[in-house]
Amino acid sequence: MKASRFFIGTLKEAPSDAEIVSHKLMVRAGMIRRVAGGIYNYLPIGLRSIRKVEQIVREEMNRAGAIELLMPAVQPAELWQESGRWEQYGPELLRFKDRKQSDFVMGPTHEEVVTDIARGQIKSYRQLPVNFYQVQTKFRDEIRPRFGVMRGREFIMKDAYSFDKDVEGLKVSYRKMYDAYTRIFTRLGLEFRAVAADNGSIGGSGSHEFHVIAETGEDDIAYCPTSDFAANVEAADALPLIAQRGAPTQALTKTPTPGAAKCEAVAELLGIPLESTIKSIILATDKEGAEPTIWLLMLRGDHDLNEIKVGKLEGLGGFRFATESEIVEWFGTPPGYLGPLNTKKPVKVIADSTVANMSDFVVGSNEVDFHTTGVNWGRDLPEPVVADIRNVKKGDPSPDGKGVIDICRGIEVGHVFQLGTKYSDAMNATFLAENGKPAPMQMGCYGIGITRILGAAIEQNFDEKGIIWPESIAPFQVVVCPMGMDRSELVREHAERVYNELLEAGVDVILDDRGERPGVMFADWELIGVPHRLVIGERGLKDGKIEYQGRRDTEATLLAAEAAAQTVAQKVRAAIAV
Amino acid sequence: MKASRFFIGTLKEAPSDAEIVSHKLMVRAGMIRRVAGGIYNYLPIGLRSIRKVEQIVREEMNRAGAIELLMPAVQPAELWQESGRWEQYGPELLRFKDRKQSDFVMGPTHEEVVTDIARGQIKSYRQLPVNFYQVQTKFRDEIRPRFGVMRGREFIMKDAYSFDKDVEGLKVSYRKMYDAYTRIFTRLGLEFRAVAADNGSIGGSGSHEFHVIAETGEDDIAYCPTSDFAANVEAADALPLIAQRGAPTQALTKTPTPGAAKCEAVAELLGIPLESTIKSIILATDKEGAEPTIWLLMLRGDHDLNEIKVGKLEGLGGFRFATESEIVEWFGTPPGYLGPLNTKKPVKVIADSTVANMSDFVVGSNEVDFHTTGVNWGRDLPEPVVADIRNVKKGDPSPDGKGVIDICRGIEVGHVFQLGTKYSDAMNATFLAENGKPAPMQMGCYGIGITRILGAAIEQNFDEKGIIWPESIAPFQVVVCPMGMDRSELVREHAERVYNELLEAGVDVILDDRGERPGVMFADWELIGVPHRLVIGERGLKDGKIEYQGRRDTEATLLAAEAAAQTVAQKVRAAIAV
Repeated sequence: MKASRFFIGTLKEAPSDAEIVSHKLMVRAGMIRRVAGGIYNYLPIGLRSIRKVEQIVREEMNRAGAIELLMPAVQPAELWQESGRWEQYGPELLRFKDRKQSDFVMGPTHEEVVTDIARGQIKSYRQLPVNFYQVQTKFRDEIRPRFGVMRGREFIMKDAYSFDKDVEGLKVSYRKMYDAYTRIFTRLGLEFRAVAADNGSIGGSGSHEFHVIAETGEDDIAYCPTSDFAANVEAADALPLIAQRGAPTQALTKTPTPGAAKCEAVAELLGIPLESTIKSIILATDKEGAEPTIWLLMLRGDHDLNEIKVGKLEGLGGFRFATESEIVEWFGTPPGYLGPLNTKKPVKVIADSTVANMSDFVVGSNEVDFHTTGVNWGRDLPEPVVADIRNVKKGDPSPDGKGVIDICRGIEVGHVFQLGTKYSDAMNATFLAENGKPAPMQMGCYGIGITRILGAAIEQNFDEKGIIWPESIAPFQVVVCPMGMDRSELVREHAERVYNELLEAGVDVILDDRGERPGVMFADWELIGVPHRLVIGERGLKDGKIEYQGRRDTEATLLAAEAAAQTVAQKVRAAIAV
Repeated sequence: MKASRFFIGTLKEAPSDAEIVSHKLMVRAGMIRRVAGGIYNYLPIGLRSIRKVEQIVREEMNRAGAIELLMPAVQPAELWQESGRWEQYGPELLRFKDRKQSDFVMGPTHEEVVTDIARGQIKSYRQLPVNFYQVQTKFRDEIRPRFGVMRGREFIMKDAYSFDKDVEGLKVSYRKMYDAYTRIFTRLGLEFRAVAADNGSIGGSGSHEFHVIAETGEDDIAYCPTSDFAANVEAADALPLIAQRGAPTQALTKTPTPGAAKCEAVAELLGIPLESTIKSIILATDKEGAEPTIWLLMLRGDHDLNEIKVGKLEGLGGFRFATESEIVEWFGTPPGYLGPLNTKKPVKVIADSTVANMSDFVVGSNEVDFHTTGVNWGRDLPEPVVADIRNVKKGDPSPDGKGVIDICRGIEVGHVFQLGTKYSDAMNATFLAENGKPAPMQMGCYGIGITRILGAAIEQNFDEKGIIWPESIAPFQVVVCPMGMDRSELVREHAERVYNELLEAGVDVILDDRGERPGVMFADWELIGVPHRLVIGERGLKDGKIEYQGRRDTEATLLAAEAAAQTVAQKVRAAIAV
């Protein structure tokens, strides 16, 4: 591509509504332009990177045996009424009427449409398994669209839907997609993790998210650097940190702790480790026509409550935090200094699995300015109900037993999910099984946010000059910048030669023949983030040299002018080979 | 591709709502499935052909210097209010509100959005010309969606928009697109014509439609087989068929023509050629507070009125046909037997340019059952106002003087249009011209109906067995049909070998390894319309032969088994080379 025949729309300033770096840089680099909130034009440079992402996604989906089709953006309400989502889905589902006053939606996802295809096309187990995918424009009416392509309203997704005859088949289809996603994000050149939505192991999990690792990510991810364990912090199992409970060594002692309501203050005041203190958290559950049940959850002083885990415990579905007046009624004292000993009315105690193995620990005395030390299970308190109710922490043992947990932040760019028969039951998508009887298809769904990947790649790869694209999705792999091409025949000749040699070598190269000053050229291409730059000037050519600089290099190096194109083509190939 | 890893959804019966052959065959071949009225799923086979059309379109658009971007489907009402189309556009424009009650439309076209891009990005004449295009999903809320992809509501279009600094530039951009379209439809392997929306010559025209020629087409096209003249019949100039008026030879004679109200009957009764008779057509135009003006339009008996041409004549804008009572009032007789002689009240006479050169002709006498023969201009009637008011006819001289007109029917699949400053004026899209002053950009727009092309290609290419795809857009170029692959190792070996050789030769081949009976296989692939078929069976292989049949061939031929793949690859290459 020659820049004079292309459109480069770089900007000096980012728009005022751009809050995050990828949004700012995509606008400044001329990749996107806002049309309305969360709705963008993809300008030529942006579209080039989108197409490269799409291409890699398609290649790996095809390799995994998925079959591409294309479903419509506009979907009739009837299908959504059948699945029940017409009522369940919130206002993110854009609903509208056509000219005949029939109800339609702009598809945010295509489970209904694809299930309708499957029930129409698939009659027999012999036609299964099958996995249909599409690369398609979706709409989700976000209440606060922002962050550019990271949380847009109209966006491009790859969505795939597998159909199997039984659960074992679904697990195979799921695993194929998991592996395909791993190849896709590897080829995209992104640092990523597959994160279990529940217990962190691919075998037992019905859902994984694929996250691009970036400090600016929205999600906290617990992972094990020495194994492939990774899970959302909210979902990661927290193992007991104490293998076996020690015998009591201290007497139960009520101790003044004036002003020290928090564990950190108690530990400091008493000169003991934070790990010896206990945090008491008071929850309530309601039953109609009865007084609420009050729960006391015990966590080690350095641990945080995981409300998602708590909500899954028996009796605690729909829990709430207890009110101050309930605390006074049940504990005889306002919040602060609470504990399981001598409550005023009976409470249900749950100990975190680490707390359950502690001995000689410290709890609040249910009296302002007092704690009780030397508390022990069995002796001072009945054996507790035990559960995992905390967030994992950096340094915890990995649940797979293969190392130690670390925490990072991630941006979700893909999701694989075992749907089971949710949609096939609701929409009566059955097939004739080998036993001659109709059975519902086992479904999985698998999404990749194509446009979101661009934002995530930038959040992971940028510097103060602009974007640093991974090789495989850069809008151009190499830029050739001639210095004074219009004045120097020598420069023009070499620029054209190098450009043509790179083209012939299959490199996606742009020749900047706009006639801009070097400063403008360099700033544009650093902002746009092209991985390799060749600068062709008279002075260098007189020594037989062309200047090369990789986008991450701090300094330029000189290449032999005649071999420059081959040398750079080699670098490109090496960078893309995965 | 192996059929066992692909999805083939052929049907025996077409759906009851399918009226035309392309709709029936696309559903039966498993290319599309209806989701709602005018909204379709593109199943894997259909999508393959769509992608091939898109690819050719992209290659030629890029070659012509157009730059691809992607604009959104959902567009804010503000832009349409700016251009004025928010009010002008009918209910085909789907309007809706988002969750914040802001107005949006589903884009049926993108003039507003692209003009908004241009005014934001283009500041100087130095940035012009530029031509942006996209391949994108559009929505037009047709009142009666039908004919499958031919008149759908959601459909894929390639739309391009050129921006130039002046009218000369616009004409150059327009010509480039005209030429690119010519290459595109040639490469698609379709018989087509570029049809002028006005006078039929590229130089003077502001708009051309590209039509695929098919008997089932909606439009009548006048074209000259010995030149490149082509125009919609409604727009084609009709030349006078008589070069010079002959001198009168007959006396004016009132002749009884009982029961012969129509020209054909008069000619038969009087034993004269139809070409000597005149058809009188009575129109009216209204003026407020005055009685209507009555017009008598004179056409040769074998010619048809062209209402579009009439509507453009001075004084005839908004004309209507005269009522029976008006005819009685102005002519003294009910309709039938009307003519310009002896009207009861004065009428304005317009003669078609052929009629103006006639002599000794026949008109109605304004009296039931009577015509007047031997009528001559100047002698019996004042010299008329002359205009081209008829449709061209097969056999007419071509307006370009290079042959004779023929008529065919066509399906519009592309349109190039010089917009001028319609949108740039309305939306204030200006640039700084070389004189330093702001000037509005000169715009052109250029559309191709990607999905519609599939339907048009089928309307042009089918037989009783199914579709006959042009080579370049067939979902597969070659199908390999093994007979009893599961029983015969020999057949399997050769099938795999031929399949792999074709793949290596770059042929888009499918191996039908589904294990279906030959009859089912053959019927499927003839319905789907794959251009080349190889049948591999034990009997043939024993003689070293593989059976080949082109989709249009009436009989199969035998190829040497070892050379079969190369022979077919050669046929494919020859068919695609344009």
